[in-house]
Amino acid sequence: MPDPATAPRTLRLSPRDNVAVALDTLPEGSRVDGLVIPARVPRGHKFALAEIADGAPILKFGQIIGFAAGAIAPGAHIHVHNVALHDFDRDYAFAADARAEVPLPPEAQGTFAGFRRSNGRTGTRNYLGILTSVNCSASVARFAAEHLQRAGVGEWFPGVDGIVPITHGTGCGMAAKGEGFEVLSRTLWGYATHPNFAAVVMVGLGCEMFQIARFKAEYGVEETDTFRTLTIQDEGGTRRAVEHITGALREMLPAANALKRSQRPLSELVLALQCGGSDGYSGLTANPALGVASDLLVRHGGTSILSETPEIYGAEHLLTRRAATRAVGEKLVARIRWWEAYTARNGGEMNNNPSPGNKAGGLTTILEKSLGAAAKGGSSTLNAVYEYAEPVTAPGFVFMDTPGYDPVAATGQVAGGANLICFTTGRGSAFGCKPTPSIKLATNTDVYQRMTEDMDINCGDVLDGVPLERKGEEIFDLLVRVASGERTKSELLGYGDAEFVPWQIGAVM
Amino acid sequence: MPDPATAPRTLRLSPRDNVAVALDTLPEGSRVDGLVIPARVPRGHKFALAEIADGAPILKFGQIIGFAAGAIAPGAHIHVHNVALHDFDRDYAFAADARAEVPLPPEAQGTFAGFRRSNGRTGTRNYLGILTSVNCSASVARFAAEHLQRAGVGEWFPGVDGIVPITHGTGCGMAAKGEGFEVLSRTLWGYATHPNFAAVVMVGLGCEMFQIARFKAEYGVEETDTFRTLTIQDEGGTRRAVEHITGALREMLPAANALKRSQRPLSELVLALQCGGSDGYSGLTANPALGVASDLLVRHGGTSILSETPEIYGAEHLLTRRAATRAVGEKLVARIRWWEAYTARNGGEMNNNPSPGNKAGGLTTILEKSLGAAAKGGSSTLNAVYEYAEPVTAPGFVFMDTPGYDPVAATGQVAGGANLICFTTGRGSAFGCKPTPSIKLATNTDVYQRMTEDMDINCGDVLDGVPLERKGEEIFDLLVRVASGERTKSELLGYGDAEFVPWQIGAVM
Ligand SMILES: [Ca+2]
Ligand SMILES: [Ca+2]
Ligand SMILES: [Ca+2]
Ligand SMILES: [Ca+2]
Ligand SMILES: [Ca+2]
Repeated sequence: MPDPATAPRTLRLSPRDNVAVALDTLPEGSRVDGLVIPARVPRGHKFALAEIADGAPILKFGQIIGFAAGAIAPGAHIHVHNVALHDFDRDYAFAADARAEVPLPPEAQGTFAGFRRSNGRTGTRNYLGILTSVNCSASVARFAAEHLQRAGVGEWFPGVDGIVPITHGTGCGMAAKGEGFEVLSRTLWGYATHPNFAAVVMVGLGCEMFQIARFKAEYGVEETDTFRTLTIQDEGGTRRAVEHITGALREMLPAANALKRSQRPLSELVLALQCGGSDGYSGLTANPALGVASDLLVRHGGTSILSETPEIYGAEHLLTRRAATRAVGEKLVARIRWWEAYTARNGGEMNNNPSPGNKAGGLTTILEKSLGAAAKGGSSTLNAVYEYAEPVTAPGFVFMDTPGYDPVAATGQVAGGANLICFTTGRGSAFGCKPTPSIKLATNTDVYQRMTEDMDINCGDVLDGVPLERKGEEIFDLLVRVASGERTKSELLGYGDAEFVPWQIGAVM
Repeated sequence: MPDPATAPRTLRLSPRDNVAVALDTLPEGSRVDGLVIPARVPRGHKFALAEIADGAPILKFGQIIGFAAGAIAPGAHIHVHNVALHDFDRDYAFAADARAEVPLPPEAQGTFAGFRRSNGRTGTRNYLGILTSVNCSASVARFAAEHLQRAGVGEWFPGVDGIVPITHGTGCGMAAKGEGFEVLSRTLWGYATHPNFAAVVMVGLGCEMFQIARFKAEYGVEETDTFRTLTIQDEGGTRRAVEHITGALREMLPAANALKRSQRPLSELVLALQCGGSDGYSGLTANPALGVASDLLVRHGGTSILSETPEIYGAEHLLTRRAATRAVGEKLVARIRWWEAYTARNGGEMNNNPSPGNKAGGLTTILEKSLGAAAKGGSSTLNAVYEYAEPVTAPGFVFMDTPGYDPVAATGQVAGGANLICFTTGRGSAFGCKPTPSIKLATNTDVYQRMTEDMDINCGDVLDGVPLERKGEEIFDLLVRVASGERTKSELLGYGDAEFVPWQIGAVM
């Protein structure tokens, strides 16, 4: 028997898999997992757990990453020399792997302590928001929030989590119709109605392209006790606009402060899945562990949103197979085609193929690479596909089309209604968000230790033998606690006032 | 003699003009400017000051706005019915109207009290800056600035105007080369070296597309006592990064605080011309008055930057004629062609033609409309054309290609080195900027009175008879005082922490 303390470590990501990953280099002749390794397997690379016949699928994450090009012996190194993709990458196989998901019976479904809103949605936080239609009103929004902060609102109204100015760089110098305008409209609408806001004031300059009056008309918004709008020009300048906002918020604060959390079913959680600053461990530790938590949430009737289209590009077949219906799969493919046109007209191209560095690190195919990112979404059936910032209404596992860039991706998901974010990072992102709390998962122990004050959970211990199932349950437990009010690291640090970045599509004029 | 109190008001914008504008409706048979009006001239429309022969140029702002289509009688209404453009709009006439400008003799040139920097440039303010390479470090920059503010830096170091976090929404999820990347590089370089900063700390996350190490290599930047860089990932998280920044700034503060203003020639002023929220008066009052001030600054050897390419589109002939050389004119035309491609690939088109509303208000041709915007640039010879955020090195009147959108346009001009901004507004912009002070000129008395706390000068009194020359001198005097330290309205209100918006070109991925 090899000494367990010095034996090379290996990781099998799913019980269905016929390959495992060597976490340490496997020398020729070494014995692991009951096999003798016929030839050296570099660290991070894969080896066969059993004989694989010529043409048979190679399974990692329980899913196909390629097909054997020739028979593969047990223990053999598996990489570009003996893996092919055939025509898999041209077959969307819509809904081929769809499963009728069986949620837990109601009595077994969990609960969290949330803020039930009058529109039927549930918040995990209780903020007041100051939305802005244009950069030209950003400072006024901030002045109003700072004024109330200085006046001690936090102490007088401890039931309110804070007053959040939602500022950005766009809203004018843009076409008044088309994709760019619609994306901004949906985003602001999603924030205006977000359940983590008890009430919202929206402020514009007055002459901007993004007209608040038009916005209200298009979405059928009325001025209410919890939604008020104004413009700096109508008010007669900065000071009066700030006074109007602080006056409105002072009227809103007592009612917001009186709101209490109540026990709500986990089906009211909408989880945004995110990764940023990925590394070679993302696909082995934090992402699959988050996938376990996502599947658990789906079993409890909740919603989980995978996004970041550029990172699944070229491997959309993995999701179309899992689509609940052909229509869902086709909507995803339509977004893929849109991205090809978007990058082409901007002089670039979509390419998520493994780079030479990826391949040296052990990633063999585009499917394997994208599965590392998509592993966050677990293995649940894909119930719906949304465009950026569209309201997410389907339960279960869904996809929202966003860029991979973290603040832009998260802004779209939050606009869609996400009341929780779970963010994996290998390089060490410091991301935080308001009004939605963001939990950060380190993919490796080194980054967790270096950035402990920014990281909520270390998933690096998966490499030391902590089972993915147990790690996923740990994440799930924290999700429920954070949904119920426990502060994340990024909340304790004060993040979230600078990370609202709506996707800007189109010319700035 | 008509009663001067009730006589209709008229405005002639240049002594060269053969038309004037009716500020009040001129009834048939009324007498103004020594003429009898043969037929009604609506308010805001033009009338002939003398007989104009068929085909002769119509001059407003001292420049050609079109040609008489048939002979025009003195006092006659001049509009689309009797004005044509012929082929003027296809003739760039490069440098046809260039003049060798004669600056004032050195002993007659004015001075201001500025901060002379070691790189030979001169600041009008003395800030410390915290630059960010990416949105992912925006919060850290703000935390550091807030920390020092709470610690009372303002009281201990009264010679420093403040600590400015320069945050934005981009820096990652973008192509690592090409126009978008270069624009961001130039912009950050321009801020990093801006003379209104005594010293700068630049902070990144670490894994972003915009790598600080590459930026330093490309611009040959060294770490010095007044320029330091770091990343959150290298420091080991948010708290340590904030400590690093505040520590660096604490070391920089005493030297910055010790700097004193000294008398410097006005040739060291670089004025950014801006307008936002324009109205029908912009081209009659604030813009031409600012043009007078711009010409004065040029006579004193200073630099004045006109921008906002979409607003001169279709009337670039006005600037190519004034270009110092054919090469300068051709560079402008190249940018015009670039804009046509930029908007086309984004599904739009360039169009600055007078709208039906413009025409009803009295604007006859695209030349006249664009002259209203370009009037800010006075009548000086165009010495150079710059791309967005390029360092402005030529003295005199220059053009920088920017969008019209205020924060994006001003960000490019400031990156180019502008140490003053003068901003005209008719609807009532509340714009402010750091590190460059922004003077706001109201185009009409009504907006000035409604937003007095935001407006530095009322140009509406030009309509009441204040000569443009005198208004221009009033603006020029304020420019010099503000350059020497007098606070603008937007500075008193605290603007400038949310208005850094680099031009984002290309796909967000
Ligand atoms: Ca990612
Ligand atoms: Ca991301
Ligand atoms: Ca900002
Ligand atoms: Ca303008
Ligand atoms: Ca503008």
